Amino acid sequence: MNGIEIRGVSKSFAGLRALDDITLTLGEGMIYGLLGRNGAGKSTLLNLITNRLFPDEGEIFINGEPAAENDRAQSLVYLMGEKDYYPDAMRVRDVFRWTGNFYGGFDLERAGEFCELFGLDQTKKIQQLSTGYRSIYKIITALCVDVPYVLLDEPVLGLDANHRELFYKLLIEQYAAEPRTFVLSTHLIEEIAALIEQIVVIKNGRIIRDESCESLLASGYTVAGKAGDVDRFIEGKNVIGTDTLGGLKTAYLLGRPNRDEVPQGIELSRIDLQKLFIELTNEQGAKK
Amino acid sequence: MNGIEIRGVSKSFAGLRALDDITLTLGEGMIYGLLGRNGAGKSTLLNLITNRLFPDEGEIFINGEPAAENDRAQSLVYLMGEKDYYPDAMRVRDVFRWTGNFYGGFDLERAGEFCELFGLDQTKKIQQLSTGYRSIYKIITALCVDVPYVLLDEPVLGLDANHRELFYKLLIEQYAAEPRTFVLSTHLIEEIAALIEQIVVIKNGRIIRDESCESLLASGYTVAGKAGDVDRFIEGKNVIGTDTLGGLKTAYLLGRPNRDEVPQGIELSRIDLQKLFIELTNEQGAKK
Repeated sequence: MNGIEIRGVSKSFAGLRALDDITLTLGEGMIYGLLGRNGAGKSTLLNLITNRLFPDEGEIFINGEPAAENDRAQSLVYLMGEKDYYPDAMRVRDVFRWTGNFYGGFDLERAGEFCELFGLDQTKKIQQLSTGYRSIYKIITALCVDVPYVLLDEPVLGLDANHRELFYKLLIEQYAAEPRTFVLSTHLIEEIAALIEQIVVIKNGRIIRDESCESLLASGYTVAGKAGDVDRFIEGKNVIGTDTLGGLKTAYLLGRPNRDEVPQGIELSRIDLQKLFIELTNEQGAKK
Repeated sequence: MNGIEIRGVSKSFAGLRALDDITLTLGEGMIYGLLGRNGAGKSTLLNLITNRLFPDEGEIFINGEPAAENDRAQSLVYLMGEKDYYPDAMRVRDVFRWTGNFYGGFDLERAGEFCELFGLDQTKKIQQLSTGYRSIYKIITALCVDVPYVLLDEPVLGLDANHRELFYKLLIEQYAAEPRTFVLSTHLIEEIAALIEQIVVIKNGRIIRDESCESLLASGYTVAGKAGDVDRFIEGKNVIGTDTLGGLKTAYLLGRPNRDEVPQGIELSRIDLQKLFIELTNEQGAKK
């Protein structure tokens, strides 16, 4: 069966359960959002898929083959991680070549175009790059390597808004030109809401949501209007948050709105994915 | 005169002009957004105000006193920077005490409450903290120190969406309770759009905008509707970007809309601050 299959995987560090009995399938040709708070277990899961870590329990399969210590399976998955896995003295263009050799395919020409777009000089050594450009050379590598599964852990860390927008645009273009699976793990949730098709939410090492972005967004809604009108409308409803600006109020609610019930002066709109995520994952008083 | 006054300040590094003849006043009791791309000169400006760097040309005054090598002036400004200025082996609670001693005022009780809210154990040493919590102890210090000018350079780096929302909420509450000046330098522009009153945009070491958030946002607008309708409406107008989803299209325009001209089926709304920023600061083919 094609896809990445995670079956009953658990992993602990120093007695703390980072992942607790995770079962999940990542299909082919889809853009996933892997969402969770800091420490929820997202990076651990990505590292388990790509053999940077090994599970205490459970198994992972890539296109039907065991992922653990299996070069053929691993050659199908590229992880862009927070750490640099290349030597600091390596030049960016050599990272591209080396990646192509390991994975059996890399679009050097496209990588060159992307370097131009981002303003990255590919003759530079990794150690010469700023935080933003360290993310950028990794993003370009991830977009140009020829594998069916690309995992991106915090891809936009340190990028300014212009470079983030460029990255999202190139990702969509690459995906449209040659469908493959992208898994995006990021804290900038609202920015990727329009990109992702399927959402996996991890909380305290467990999966609490695995559904389409569309269906998750349909589980809540937003109303806005004059504060008094909004207050009357939301009374008794499942309100997860409000914002007030002057005399105007916006309220975020769980459930499905009954359109016939919405009075004049109240504007109904879809809920913001980030607001919904915050509500699903908030915990009071957790010590870390 | 009260405020931070920057007069004709320039600064070069290795022959490259990082700041070029900057003149700017940061008033009392205001929330500023200091916006710019990576490398535009934002951190250099904040470091010049707080004596981490000294200008090649020009002068800076804090409440009328020269900023350079002047402890009395410096005791009025707190900079939360990307670097850790405290020893790695220092505990968080000792950072709070030490900051209070240097600046002549610190609300230890409130800092304790904020640690609870963020889930930060203040007996921990800085070296034990993750990237997110390194931002958090600095945020808390910046919100609780008793100075009239608080400068925050990338305050939310590494924070998850829940902690970012909490930070924005506490910032607004602290500002309402005790007005002082906050200067926020961040790449997450859309998230702070509702917080900031005044916007300063730096591009290539020069200030290109210094105006109220309201007036900057009034310089553009957004239209949305069926792709065909939108295309007809925007023809000949100053379009800075478009997004298409299925048959629907959103277009971002500069200028002021003529409401009478907007046809049925076209929805008019305010422009997104981040979109506007991207357009103001984009540059094609810049090599770095």
